[in-house]
Amino acid sequence: MKKVLIDCDPGIDDALALALAAGSPSLDVVGITTVGGNVDLSLTTANALALREFLEMGNVPVTPGSAGALLRETVRATRVHGTTGLGGVVLPTPQLGPSDGHAVDFIVDTLKAAPGEITLVAVGPLTNIALAVRREPRVVEWARELVIMGGSFTRGNHNPAAEFNMLADPEAAAIVFGAGWTVRMLGLDVTLSATVTSDVLDRMRPLGKLAELLVPAAQFYGVVTADGGPAIHDACAVAYVLDPSLFTCVPAMVNVETAGLYTRGMTVTDFKVSEQDSNALVATSIDVKGFWELVLGAYERLAGRLG
Amino acid sequence: MKKVLIDCDPGIDDALALALAAGSPSLDVVGITTVGGNVDLSLTTANALALREFLEMGNVPVTPGSAGALLRETVRATRVHGTTGLGGVVLPTPQLGPSDGHAVDFIVDTLKAAPGEITLVAVGPLTNIALAVRREPRVVEWARELVIMGGSFTRGNHNPAAEFNMLADPEAAAIVFGAGWTVRMLGLDVTLSATVTSDVLDRMRPLGKLAELLVPAAQFYGVVTADGGPAIHDACAVAYVLDPSLFTCVPAMVNVETAGLYTRGMTVTDFKVSEQDSNALVATSIDVKGFWELVLGAYERLAGRLG
Amino acid sequence: MKKVLIDCDPGIDDALALALAAGSPSLDVVGITTVGGNVDLSLTTANALALREFLEMGNVPVTPGSAGALLRETVRATRVHGTTGLGGVVLPTPQLGPSDGHAVDFIVDTLKAAPGEITLVAVGPLTNIALAVRREPRVVEWARELVIMGGSFTRGNHNPAAEFNMLADPEAAAIVFGAGWTVRMLGLDVTLSATVTSDVLDRMRPLGKLAELLVPAAQFYGVVTADGGPAIHDACAVAYVLDPSLFTCVPAMVNVETAGLYTRGMTVTDFKVSEQDSNALVATSIDVKGFWELVLGAYERLAGRLG
Amino acid sequence: MKKVLIDCDPGIDDALALALAAGSPSLDVVGITTVGGNVDLSLTTANALALREFLEMGNVPVTPGSAGALLRETVRATRVHGTTGLGGVVLPTPQLGPSDGHAVDFIVDTLKAAPGEITLVAVGPLTNIALAVRREPRVVEWARELVIMGGSFTRGNHNPAAEFNMLADPEAAAIVFGAGWTVRMLGLDVTLSATVTSDVLDRMRPLGKLAELLVPAAQFYGVVTADGGPAIHDACAVAYVLDPSLFTCVPAMVNVETAGLYTRGMTVTDFKVSEQDSNALVATSIDVKGFWELVLGAYERLAGRLG
Repeated sequence: MKKVLIDCDPGIDDALALALAAGSPSLDVVGITTVGGNVDLSLTTANALALREFLEMGNVPVTPGSAGALLRETVRATRVHGTTGLGGVVLPTPQLGPSDGHAVDFIVDTLKAAPGEITLVAVGPLTNIALAVRREPRVVEWARELVIMGGSFTRGNHNPAAEFNMLADPEAAAIVFGAGWTVRMLGLDVTLSATVTSDVLDRMRPLGKLAELLVPAAQFYGVVTADGGPAIHDACAVAYVLDPSLFTCVPAMVNVETAGLYTRGMTVTDFKVSEQDSNALVATSIDVKGFWELVLGAYERLAGRLG
Repeated sequence: MKKVLIDCDPGIDDALALALAAGSPSLDVVGITTVGGNVDLSLTTANALALREFLEMGNVPVTPGSAGALLRETVRATRVHGTTGLGGVVLPTPQLGPSDGHAVDFIVDTLKAAPGEITLVAVGPLTNIALAVRREPRVVEWARELVIMGGSFTRGNHNPAAEFNMLADPEAAAIVFGAGWTVRMLGLDVTLSATVTSDVLDRMRPLGKLAELLVPAAQFYGVVTADGGPAIHDACAVAYVLDPSLFTCVPAMVNVETAGLYTRGMTVTDFKVSEQDSNALVATSIDVKGFWELVLGAYERLAGRLG
Repeated sequence: MKKVLIDCDPGIDDALALALAAGSPSLDVVGITTVGGNVDLSLTTANALALREFLEMGNVPVTPGSAGALLRETVRATRVHGTTGLGGVVLPTPQLGPSDGHAVDFIVDTLKAAPGEITLVAVGPLTNIALAVRREPRVVEWARELVIMGGSFTRGNHNPAAEFNMLADPEAAAIVFGAGWTVRMLGLDVTLSATVTSDVLDRMRPLGKLAELLVPAAQFYGVVTADGGPAIHDACAVAYVLDPSLFTCVPAMVNVETAGLYTRGMTVTDFKVSEQDSNALVATSIDVKGFWELVLGAYERLAGRLG
Repeated sequence: MKKVLIDCDPGIDDALALALAAGSPSLDVVGITTVGGNVDLSLTTANALALREFLEMGNVPVTPGSAGALLRETVRATRVHGTTGLGGVVLPTPQLGPSDGHAVDFIVDTLKAAPGEITLVAVGPLTNIALAVRREPRVVEWARELVIMGGSFTRGNHNPAAEFNMLADPEAAAIVFGAGWTVRMLGLDVTLSATVTSDVLDRMRPLGKLAELLVPAAQFYGVVTADGGPAIHDACAVAYVLDPSLFTCVPAMVNVETAGLYTRGMTVTDFKVSEQDSNALVATSIDVKGFWELVLGAYERLAGRLG
């Protein structure tokens, strides 16, 4: 059992990533923390609460965190995720509320209580992680690993240079990449390769209750064809924890641009460094078939449970 | 009684500011938090602990906070404050240690417990205050007032553009000035006017045990002559809390530069704004005579107590 | 006789500076070049042509140069100088047109033809000078001296950080300060001290035809009282050439900020450098009385000639 | 006959580009201008002069231009091109010297004399072109077309973000891309696809005197194998003039980053713009086979002439 703490901003692909985690018996989700990102914090938290119950994740604590970026004006991706953050999907109103306290404290306390055991998976802007690192630098040692969905070594999505999560809080990203650990970076370079095709969608359709989340979410996210469709970025980070061998990862020095006129939030990735000069393991390719087997297998397992 | 929470990085002038607070019966110091700044956090904390006992400040909690800036490389002012941070002064080893926990949590919890009552006085880099604001945005409402020593609307001291506290953490300063409160900014424009002259020093000399701190500290800090000497910057912030009428303050919009090649940490101050567009009350002049009466009166009162 | 080549953007104070030059028999104006600045190039050129004839400057060539900044969007000061650039003053339509060719070539060729003889006086944005330096680096050696009106070591005028001429083309200013000569910088720190008071205005009033330029120009420029009034910035640069002893000048390293969010065009001035590390002589004070004697004397002399 | 003016910094690939031009009867090279870039201006000029005679280009004028960048410190690529700029190749000492005057004036005057007729091909840092544009904005209208080798819409070569020519003078590049014409941008995205393989080298070897330039130049430039080898970037720009159909070009808005910490000189390329909002036609793919047929055909034709 791998313990993971998932920091997220659901978000359609966050939802699909949580579903992957929920359907993976080898993962023990010790907490979910939320951050403002794709949509406002109130919505990402509400969505996380609804997903916890819909996905029958039990009493995993959901703890809200940072509403906005460290320094920058708020950037949202409502156009991509819809005004609620889950496209057109309407989940049942959850019974349970969020935990008391703040995501940053939850992260610090949880990692401190089990040093070396918990993998931090961050699939939204890195505000909470950065604040945790600055609030308690030892989280870098306590975390088993940090896996993020974010960045790119080629081009951005929110603008030509930057991926959304990095653009949404470039200073936080700079703090996180500079903190002293080896960031596992699953960026657009791989996530854009693993898209929901009509074959994938066909395997989602018969999944009963779960299909009511998966199918419209995927369809809201992009046009699905036989050859391609929307990428479910965040699920790549959870997939990496489940099976790193699905990805080719290369050591690199990643500097996050915070000062450019056109390049803020860009993850400037230098592969021409020795491993000891690197601060990241950057995923450069993905076994797309293996990825979908992993994901759809987990979805099928979860669907069997949910009915 | 005015309640104050003092965030500091002692530092010679921090020591003289704490002595001013300790000698002012109208102030209730509810806590001291420390930050890396003039010297490393371990030293600023050790100095705060030693000063708490030397100045007989009782059981005021001393809580250590951030070691480094949010984003930048560390900048220190060891050349100004000596390697220990207190010039050549050696205080007795304190009996008591720091409080558990972190300055950021202490600030959040203390302000939360008494909304509207406590004035935050920050005389070091603004890292702790910025983290508190981002960790819990309501501290802005809970604080009675924020008074800082830092910045300048003319020229810097650490370099031509920037004052040391602002330069040491420009992003933190930008967060704090942008947080929604009206920052009381006591900058170089006034602090450099209130210097330790030979007359001032002459009134410090007879102060017994306290003089053993004050006199060598002041002398380490700069050359004292009849016409001028070193400025004890941080004491201005405490003096402002005690008697704001000593200062002329003007509403202004202060933007902290974070992106310049030569101007990082500069507090770009625009006085040509309406009061509702301002984010700061900037001190533009100081009643030097009144300031020293206040400070020396407090020192004399304290000396009477310390023996 | 001192030979000067005046690069300008008339502009009210440019007009008063040209009048000072025209009334100074010890100056030989070898050329006037124009640049877009206070108003558009077409207007600054038209104004220079009109002034050449109105001030009876003979056949001094007037050569137009750069319309816009090297890199930045155009910034104008129409609010200060009126839509024509000369406030409400309407000069007679000139008979002669501009010289063929471009200001940059004129500067290069003129300096080349008389190395060490000609002082370059630049009182607008430094676009032409920068282009001349990059087009022919030896102008730095050929110029006897470069005297500019621009910058400040305290605060700006167009915004809190930057003086107008520097803000209008920060990259050009950076090129010019970095070119290897010792820039004589007459900035706001001195120019704002030499204002048109009612006494000054009273001495302008009886100057016949010239008064028809001077008086309304000054009055358009600001409110004149017994204690102060508008500064005629550009005249300070010409006054410096005529009598440097009117100014206290201090060696400094001036870096022009090109990258800040709030500080572009700021002349960051470091006086704590040795003379050999300096790139500028920065005027820090002005003999106001002596300045006005010089200026008004020249105006009276010129008025005698103009009738 | 297409008239071209080639601004270059030979440089190995500049030499191979000039050879392509020299061997293409449909091109009329009306001038060569030089700029400091791969190596210092004195060397790029000397190499251009030697190449003019070695390639028997007749009396095409060679006019030296800018030694350094507009604003930045000099960056050189001596590691790539060797200390002379031509790897180990030693060409005969030329008989003729450079033309009088400056590249910027040559460009302005030549384009002015034949508006709409001459294609500007710039394969070095864009300093000369930027100065020409600022010195005489009408060159933008007068040029038939501007074709550059430079930039990239994915990743850099000199660092992870920037291609060498753009990095060497980012401000010049920003001026050129912002000047109002549609820049034909042949960047690393295509140039790195067209490499010297062993097959290509085998066709160069029998080319007599010309082979003495081509073969060692290519070999100095990189390791040649059956599957790949060094790219001869600059030749792509000349090839584009000869046959644009070899390239797929897509309209885009290219902004050159001048302010980033890690991204200066990056050509941030936005393809999601309408054609009228674009400022560039960016080559996105190249017909490698067709490119080499064109290039080797020209080389063979030239070799027949040179013996």
